[in-house]
Parts: sequence; C-alpha cells; structure tokens
Amino acid sequence: MSNFCRGTAHLNNDLKGIAEAFNMTNIKNLWRFKSQLSVEYEVIKITHLFSKDWHEIFTGRTHQDSARRLIIIDKKIDTLYGDDIRTFFDNAGIKTYFLLIECSEKNKNIQTVIHILQQINDISLLRRSEPIFAIGGGILLDIVGLAASLYRRGVPYIRIPTTLVGLVDAGISVKTGINCFQQRNRIGTYYPPIVSLIDISFLKTLPTNEIKKGFSEILKLAIVTDKTLFDLVDEHGLALLENKFQDINIADKIIERSIMQMAKQLNPNLWEQNLCRLVDFGHSFSPLIEMQSHKNGIPLSHGEAVILDVYLSCLISKNRGILSDKEFIKISTLIDKLGLNKYHPLFLYLKYLQKALDEIIVHRNGLQNLPLPTRIGSAEFYNDIKANDLEQAIKHTQLKKRVCIK
Amino acid sequence: MSNFCRGTAHLNNDLKGIAEAFNMTNIKNLWRFKSQLSVEYEVIKITHLFSKDWHEIFTGRTHQDSARRLIIIDKKIDTLYGDDIRTFFDNAGIKTYFLLIECSEKNKNIQTVIHILQQINDISLLRRSEPIFAIGGGILLDIVGLAASLYRRGVPYIRIPTTLVGLVDAGISVKTGINCFQQRNRIGTYYPPIVSLIDISFLKTLPTNEIKKGFSEILKLAIVTDKTLFDLVDEHGLALLENKFQDINIADKIIERSIMQMAKQLNPNLWEQNLCRLVDFGHSFSPLIEMQSHKNGIPLSHGEAVILDVYLSCLISKNRGILSDKEFIKISTLIDKLGLNKYHPLFLYLKYLQKALDEIIVHRNGLQNLPLPTRIGSAEFYNDIKANDLEQAIKHTQLKKRVCIK
Repeated sequence: MSNFCRGTAHLNNDLKGIAEAFNMTNIKNLWRFKSQLSVEYEVIKITHLFSKDWHEIFTGRTHQDSARRLIIIDKKIDTLYGDDIRTFFDNAGIKTYFLLIECSEKNKNIQTVIHILQQINDISLLRRSEPIFAIGGGILLDIVGLAASLYRRGVPYIRIPTTLVGLVDAGISVKTGINCFQQRNRIGTYYPPIVSLIDISFLKTLPTNEIKKGFSEILKLAIVTDKTLFDLVDEHGLALLENKFQDINIADKIIERSIMQMAKQLNPNLWEQNLCRLVDFGHSFSPLIEMQSHKNGIPLSHGEAVILDVYLSCLISKNRGILSDKEFIKISTLIDKLGLNKYHPLFLYLKYLQKALDEIIVHRNGLQNLPLPTRIGSAEFYNDIKANDLEQAIKHTQLKKRVCIK
Repeated sequence: MSNFCRGTAHLNNDLKGIAEAFNMTNIKNLWRFKSQLSVEYEVIKITHLFSKDWHEIFTGRTHQDSARRLIIIDKKIDTLYGDDIRTFFDNAGIKTYFLLIECSEKNKNIQTVIHILQQINDISLLRRSEPIFAIGGGILLDIVGLAASLYRRGVPYIRIPTTLVGLVDAGISVKTGINCFQQRNRIGTYYPPIVSLIDISFLKTLPTNEIKKGFSEILKLAIVTDKTLFDLVDEHGLALLENKFQDINIADKIIERSIMQMAKQLNPNLWEQNLCRLVDFGHSFSPLIEMQSHKNGIPLSHGEAVILDVYLSCLISKNRGILSDKEFIKISTLIDKLGLNKYHPLFLYLKYLQKALDEIIVHRNGLQNLPLPTRIGSAEFYNDIKANDLEQAIKHTQLKKRVCIK
C-alpha cells in the first residue's frame, strides 16, 4: 500500500489523479510520501536438515527456477558437515559454490563483507531467485546478512544457525552487523532472511563452551520474560549441557519456548522503533566491555559478556530492592550451576561500566532504558542508574569473588 | 502492525496467547513472521533555504530536542554556500560539525562511506534526534544515505540536493549506493530521508554542463511518462539552460512536474519489488558503459550515459516500428537542441551493448524488462531484444554520426 499527497492547491488538472490536497500544514509545495513495506519470513524447525526428506523445503520455498546456490559457511562447520551438504545439493541437482569463512569477532569486519560481496558479484547471482545460504553461528549470520542486504540493495538469503546462540537468537532476528571503530555491531542493517531453518542436531558437535554461551542468551530471555523457561533451564540445563541438546524432548521444549519468547519481543518491533527492549537485558554494559576485553584483560566471548551483564543488572536490581534476595539467589545459583562465569576484572572497573552506560545512552537516544528484573520472568526499564549503583554492585562482586576464590 | 503464527498443534496453553494455529502447511514446527514497516517522508520545495524564514522547517520537522548537527557537504558547495549555511545554523543556536566530501564517481566508494561513518562515530550523534544533513549532488546524497542507513542500523538524515539531477531524481528517491567491483551502484540500501528539501536557487551557481545532465533525467522521464513535460522542455529548455532555472515560474513548473512523475513511478514500488520500472529507461545500457568509459574511451558522466541510452532505446523502438519516425525525430531534435551528445564510441561496440544487456538480465532477475517508448509519454517493456536490434541501431548511429561530422 502506498500513496503520496501534496500541500498546494494549484495543481494542474491532469496531476490531480496523482496527488491529493494535503491539509495538515500551511507550507506550500510539500509532498508527503507514505509507503508500507510488508515483511514476511518463516522460521522452520527441522531435524537432520540435509537429509533428503527436506528437499521440499529447499525447492518449494527457496525458488525452483534456478539450480545454482552460493553456500557461505563457517570453516569449522564445513569441516564437520561440508560433505553431507555437498551430497545433499548434488543429489538435488543443484550446482553449488562454497565460500568458507573463518569466523571470529576480529574477522567480523568490513573486509569480510567486501570479500563476500566480491564472491557474490563474481558468480553473478540472479537478483531474486538464487538465494544465498548462510550456515554457521551468530557471527557468520550477521556478516552474511549484511552482505545480502547490501548487494544490489538486497538479495535473498537463508539463515541456517549451527550454534545454540544462533538457534535462539541470531536465527530469529532480522538484524545484521559487523564490528567497526572498536564498537560491537556498530554497522549493520535490518534485513530478514526469506527463511530461517532451525536444526538442533547441529548442536551435537558443538563444543560445551559454545553451548554455555547459548545458555547465556536463553537465561537472559527467561529472567525478563518467562519463569517457566527459567524453571526448565534450572531443571534440565545441566543434563542438556552434557548431552548437547540431543535429549530431543527436553531440548525441543526449551528451544521452542526461547524462539517463541524472542518472537514475541522482536516481531512487534522489528526495526527497533521502540528503544525500550527487554531483549537488551544483558546487552547494556556488555557491548563495550566485550570489545574492551579484546584489547586488554581476559578476552570475553559475547555469551560470557552477556551473562556478566545479566548478573550485574540483577545485582543492581537487588541492591535497589526491586528484585528480592531470594529470586536473586535463584538466578545467581543457576548461573553457577551452568558453569557460567560471574566475575571478570573489567566488570569491576567503575570507569568501564560508566563508559558503557554513557554509550548506551547515545544508542538509546538519550535514555538509559535499562531493563532490570522485578522478579524472575518480568522486568521494568530504569533511567536513573548512577555511579553509586555501579560502585555498590562492584563492591558486592569483589567481596563474593574473594569468598568464592577462598 | 505485526503478528506471527505457528504451524504446530501441540502448543502449551500459556503460549497460545502468543501464537495461533497456522493451517497453510503440513510442516510441523513452523513460525511465520509478518510485519509491516511504515515509511513516511516529505519532499518540500523551498526557495532560498538557508534564509531565516525557514527555521521552522529545521526545528519543527527535524527534532528540536538537540542542538547539534553534522553537515556532510560537497566541497564545491561548501565553497559557494558554506558561509551562508554556517551563519544560518549559528543564528539558530545550533552547533554544527562540517564534513567536506570531494565528490566524484571514483570517490563514490566504500572508503568514503567508512570515512563518513568514522566521523559520525567520533561525534557520537544521538541515534534518533540528531539527523545528519546531506548537502550536494546525486553522488553525495547516495553516499551519505548509505552511511546513514548503516550506522547503528540506521540514523535519520535530511537530503538537500544542489544539482538538477539531485532535485528531480536523487532527492526524491530512497535509494542509496556506491560503486563497487567496477559496477555502478552495486552496493546500497533503500533508506528514505526524514525530509528532502528542494531549493531551485542552488542551480544559479551550477555549471551549464551540470544543468544539461539534469535535463537527461527529465527528458528520460518525460519520454516514457509525460508528453506535457516533454513539450515544456521543448519550449523552455534552452532558455532554462541559459538562465539556469532562475525563471522561477517556468522552472517551478518543470521541476514540480518531474517530481510528481518520479513520485508516481517510485512511490508504489519503493523497494523495487516490481522489476518492470519505467524509470529504468535510460538505465539499461548506460550503467556498464558509463563505468567502462572511465577505464577506456572518453569518460562519460551519468547524465551523458543516460541520454545515450535513451537515444539508443528510442532507435531500437523506431527500428522495430514501435515508435513512429515522426516522434523519434522530435526526441532526437530535442536532444540536439539541449546540446546533449548522441554519439559515444563505446555505444557503437556491439560487445559492450551485449554485455550491458547480459548484466541487466541478472539485475532484472532473468528478464530484459527493457522499457521502449511507444510514443512520447508512454512506454512498454520488451524482453526479446537481440544482437540484430543492437547492430541495426549501431549502423544507424554510425551513419548519422558521419553525416553529422561532415
């Protein structure tokens, strides 16, 4: 749907069909453009994606009229699954071009995007009917999504997350991005895939540490939106960590619930017109400190930084009497149980926490909009966090850490 | 408006509020995301923009709550109007940061975008309420638009075109872009400004050659959409070229009409979901040949390349008996009258024309979708252009050129 209208009264007759009088302003010669972009994409949960049963997904849903595909894949995933994927496409009679990407926060930069764009350009993919496959973790999905959104102002792509973070977060989101100017995801776009394919079976080869990072995002979501999800993780988290989500019954429950909650948060606000976002929980202090940790201190992965931010936010909430001690302890205990780290030197520096807070104020257009849990499964936004709140939290953590280390 | 629904029947009760049964498919575990992005932006025609009468435009429409603005401006425009602009903002009590850009097709690249992004980042502009001003021609608007769309996944910006092409084309469009891999505008986004301010008075300092380039785009539009516009250009074009559009009565008529026609074409198809675009007239053969001309041959500006493409397309149309000889001669005569060139060596090479045609087939997803005028003010799309059509057109041009040179 679209229309435009105009502010002047002196229209020629033959232009009247195009324009309509616009009576909201007294400024002459004003045209107002109105248009709506309809976005529709699917998230499909599939097990053993590259078995032949799923040909239908690839042909029916991702255009049948061309038999060429560019597969952009994390190098590690290619080592593990590359043969299966090649066989799958060969059997389907689809010619593939593979582009292997070495994925790291360091490589999540403009050079990697240009490298991908160059490859797309070399192959001369058709603008609409030869979608790109992005197969890998959150970093890969973010980079490929950005490249897809930029080439010819947007070509179609399919997200296939292979990590737990990818399955419950990057796989569901429409955000793309790269790091730039030592800032996390400073450059990016909102660009939905045509379909996102969620296959839990990838997790069986994921290192335990990567599963832990995924739990950071699930826990983040559970604490501010869903007590049942929190309880599920509390009850089954440790077992899932051990069996790498291959206890399908339980794994399904937790992943589906996470996806639903993410969807509930993201879908009404795909382009982040509202800057009060519950999913920003764990993402207020962490972006700056994560980037900083790569320059000095012990490098933090995204998942590690997120859970440190979650813990800090819960602590602030508890100190302010918003979150009860009992609920705080439940959260703190679950973080420990999953083997996630609550301590990191950079999270004990007021300077960095303050700097991170200053930066999110710019990002949230002048407001802190800090989500603080009020109880497990619920949160509210706060705008009056002061140095004092941060100092108090630091002191608590220092004390606990000492006890913990003893 | 947004919603999402799900394909399985085994939903937990407490998730039912979020999801609804989805009965279009028999695939279990499918979520369908639906969302609509509402886009609204204004094009306002103003004369003598940086006079104090227009403070209202800048304060009322472009957020009052912050008094900092980044002005990204073509270096040449800054030399001519920089003092006025600085005085304007000083008087309004707005602190400005100026970033001067050397604009050329060669500099329309990723390095310039990164340079702009770096500046935005250094100033730490608020995400929503400190819009960027882009002041310059089509190249500047395209580059700044891309940077604005990428920084924090999109920050607001205002377009102020200062060339005739800018006023009737780039100023109205939501397209952003840079050249990459020797391809014109290969990388870009669709990203509307919050407002586009159209000030004809900038044209008084524009070199005549730049006015001519603007006529290329106006003529292109007129031939395929609007006979009255064509007649206006036929009658007044030469005078406007001489007085640089400062005969406001006539200038207004032609520019308003061009904007209306552009709006009519662009607005229902802002994201180019429909690849049959009348405004692609003059933009089928020209993108490749324009880029090629910078490598060998006589370098072509965009406007020059467009009118060569317009002429070639009209010739093909005439040779096929679609466009009458009489109408063809009217078009050809007007091109001459405005002093636009109909001859360029690269447009006489079958190899390049064929390569350009191959490339637009990729860009238009497997079809030529070549707009050919059926009469002045109207066109249809063709998909069966063959080497023979191109050869015949080349022969005609070679012959005419010889006569012309004699």
